[in-house]
Amino acid sequence: MSNAYATLVASFTKLYRYQHLAQIVAWDQAAMMPSKGNEARSAAMAELAVLLHGTLTAPHVGPALNDAKAELAGAEELASVREMERQWRVAALLPASLVEAKSLAGTRCEHAWRTQRRANDWSGFLVNWRPLVACVRQEATLLAEATGLSRYDALVDRYEPGMTTARIEPMFDELKRWLPPLIQEVTAKQRTEEIVVPAGPFPIAVQRALGLEIMGLLGFDFDAGRLDVSTHPFCGGVAEDVRITTRYREDDFVQALMGIVHETGHARYEQRLPRAWVHLPIGLARSMGIHESQSLAFEMQLGRSRPFLELITPLLRKHLGDHPAFAVDNLARIYTRVRPGFIRAEADELTYPMHVILRFEIERAIVEGEIEPEDVPALWDDKMRAYLGVDTRGNYGDGCLQDIHWTDGAFGYFPSYTLGAMYAAQFFAAMRAEMTDLDARIAAGNLAPIFAWLEDKIWSQASRWETPELIERATGAPLSVRHFEHHLRSRYLG
Amino acid sequence: MSNAYATLVASFTKLYRYQHLAQIVAWDQAAMMPSKGNEARSAAMAELAVLLHGTLTAPHVGPALNDAKAELAGAEELASVREMERQWRVAALLPASLVEAKSLAGTRCEHAWRTQRRANDWSGFLVNWRPLVACVRQEATLLAEATGLSRYDALVDRYEPGMTTARIEPMFDELKRWLPPLIQEVTAKQRTEEIVVPAGPFPIAVQRALGLEIMGLLGFDFDAGRLDVSTHPFCGGVAEDVRITTRYREDDFVQALMGIVHETGHARYEQRLPRAWVHLPIGLARSMGIHESQSLAFEMQLGRSRPFLELITPLLRKHLGDHPAFAVDNLARIYTRVRPGFIRAEADELTYPMHVILRFEIERAIVEGEIEPEDVPALWDDKMRAYLGVDTRGNYGDGCLQDIHWTDGAFGYFPSYTLGAMYAAQFFAAMRAEMTDLDARIAAGNLAPIFAWLEDKIWSQASRWETPELIERATGAPLSVRHFEHHLRSRYLG
Repeated sequence: MSNAYATLVASFTKLYRYQHLAQIVAWDQAAMMPSKGNEARSAAMAELAVLLHGTLTAPHVGPALNDAKAELAGAEELASVREMERQWRVAALLPASLVEAKSLAGTRCEHAWRTQRRANDWSGFLVNWRPLVACVRQEATLLAEATGLSRYDALVDRYEPGMTTARIEPMFDELKRWLPPLIQEVTAKQRTEEIVVPAGPFPIAVQRALGLEIMGLLGFDFDAGRLDVSTHPFCGGVAEDVRITTRYREDDFVQALMGIVHETGHARYEQRLPRAWVHLPIGLARSMGIHESQSLAFEMQLGRSRPFLELITPLLRKHLGDHPAFAVDNLARIYTRVRPGFIRAEADELTYPMHVILRFEIERAIVEGEIEPEDVPALWDDKMRAYLGVDTRGNYGDGCLQDIHWTDGAFGYFPSYTLGAMYAAQFFAAMRAEMTDLDARIAAGNLAPIFAWLEDKIWSQASRWETPELIERATGAPLSVRHFEHHLRSRYLG
Repeated sequence: MSNAYATLVASFTKLYRYQHLAQIVAWDQAAMMPSKGNEARSAAMAELAVLLHGTLTAPHVGPALNDAKAELAGAEELASVREMERQWRVAALLPASLVEAKSLAGTRCEHAWRTQRRANDWSGFLVNWRPLVACVRQEATLLAEATGLSRYDALVDRYEPGMTTARIEPMFDELKRWLPPLIQEVTAKQRTEEIVVPAGPFPIAVQRALGLEIMGLLGFDFDAGRLDVSTHPFCGGVAEDVRITTRYREDDFVQALMGIVHETGHARYEQRLPRAWVHLPIGLARSMGIHESQSLAFEMQLGRSRPFLELITPLLRKHLGDHPAFAVDNLARIYTRVRPGFIRAEADELTYPMHVILRFEIERAIVEGEIEPEDVPALWDDKMRAYLGVDTRGNYGDGCLQDIHWTDGAFGYFPSYTLGAMYAAQFFAAMRAEMTDLDARIAAGNLAPIFAWLEDKIWSQASRWETPELIERATGAPLSVRHFEHHLRSRYLG
């Protein structure tokens, strides 16, 4: 190991340990912490954020990165240095004062938003949002100037390295061309389908037991992770100890169950990241889009497929009793029901991308300075009507105030959701090309070949390759929308 | 605020926030973490310990303490500086290399001890214990040289500031004089008493619900804390978010229930520490002995008293059903049963101090270099026979290998347990002098006057006064063994 690289490994190992603390206390805040702990917790987390930034931007890191690149020319470790530098660059370009100002503006905006959303209070929200947007634009400008990217692309790059508007826009334009008519066709087709709604109550302890059994079926390692409850389901913790959450409703198990399948996809990626690199940036998940591709591989490609529903029906009966709604045909109709609606997080597989495209277009325009915060509601209304035929006028709470992302400053994240759906479709298309009897294997409970493929192509690769190379190595071709289109057409019209 | 003091407040506020992280991840490790998370967790916690030590011993802290004392002469804040300096002095006197060496030796010794205890493997234990004892002696020597205290007293001072062997020994000698005959007298008296053993099973969910209701009765703030499960019950978390744990057995609710009462005493102290000082050393609990006095005030003075058992009997019946064992007379006999035994943590109120005195005498001799690690078992056997009439020969697992304290280097802690019992007895004696109808109030569920007394005299005072002044202000007199003796004689022979 070169000297400079050894120095970097020591610094990034320290960062990794600090990150461990940040992840666990963040999980605790969402899943365990009583309400009065929040103020002290927020202060402790902010102090840790300052420490993380300071550690990453310590004076020796920049020179060591340059020295390591020179010393390691041609060696495998260069990829490790590349990922270290990616983290360092963003931190080093942003002054601590801006990091702090944005964090404070985000915390204030998000905190107030929690009540403003319920109160449908757009003008109140604007008061806190404007200063946050100002910070985000400043951040984007600093990153753009140093990287040569556009301002919005500089933000996207933090979640989806290498991805740009020039690559996203043509794919999203393609979706915009065929997805709205497809949604109309499918909803028309489904209008005559009858669905038997599962009649609860389904006690939460029972739903949890069912969820745990399905996590086991999906290969979750319970010695290296947990399932708990939080208001907004997520996958957190650290690779060695992955914490997933869900939320239960006594009258309906449908969402909670598929939510667990979704988070288990995230969790298995984390649990199977290569241990040798786990303390270094090269050992992290490749990107938010690739992370989402794993949760959507589990939820959309596998979880809502008919053979998987066949596989788990006996488990549903075992835990929840024998309901007429558990006929496989009926379950498949429940889990592929398409209905344009207000809320992204509750959207079905078909309408979800339109929610994302709408947000992508609006947030890009905000960051680039083409529109101002006060322009958002009118744009939102227009696009919701155009893309999904939904009227959101005057309904800010279920409209532009519905997501947390803009309230805490995570601009540039939204495209990852739909990139993830497209990656997942391409992965399963590649798998099906290799294994023509995949559906039969799924129905028989033989999921090992799926996990082996994902482990080989994605999980074990962590951040070794840039995303396009990862995709090409995994599937033999660059990312293309056509696999996603083929998947949707065959599932919903086939 | 003086400039130097403001600097100190900023540094200690940062420490407080780092401590918050340490407390929450430590709680998570004991109550939530799956097994495979342990290695990464230990590394993260060690990194944080290094950070805490480095922050506390930063070059500006020592000079700022001196400047602040000069600037604040006569001001109230001097007590705050005194407590800052107490933390700083210990950290500054110990080189980071010794802190690290002791931490590593302690982790190694404790880890191996978990299996060695079960295997009764004393000679295996010695291999890891000798280097740890060497670190402890080195630590004690450095602290003793700088403070003028004896080596053992320098360690005691960290848990019980101001307490010394010269003060402890006469009190413990007094206990040694009258407690063993009292134990004999009480066990003889109890030999003819019949006890109806509560017949389980008592489902854990039901025991938990009962525990939560009793915590509520005891004033636990559930918006600022939680009850969970761990192998070794403890009170952790932070003042704003207190985490207590217990452990349940399906066949017996007796220990778990009183354990919850005990931890709730710790918890209320933490929850009611003054918020204005919460981020500074002056806002911390006064000492380990005072902390234990609060848990023992709840468990021994209040919890095992007959009026309290009268008060909670309807709750036992409500949650656990109507058992013949729940007659108040019978419950009182269960909760005051005296039986000399091997294990300190399971000991009754009367034999517990003898376990502590034995450990105090042995650990003092080790730290002072009067005996060597290999001398411990023989001494242990002698003292157990002399103090409690228990034969421990050859039984290391239930003898000198039973406690975690010596395995991770917490020498000097043991006296706090019995100091706590004596403080608690003195507090309740003072309360009874003020409120002659205290037992009637307890039986009627009117616990508010007890909490008000503790809040006024102890909780709200945090570390404002040195312990002797705290005791005198609370009770009008210095610590004396006679209140403890009076309490024991009247409860067990009265």
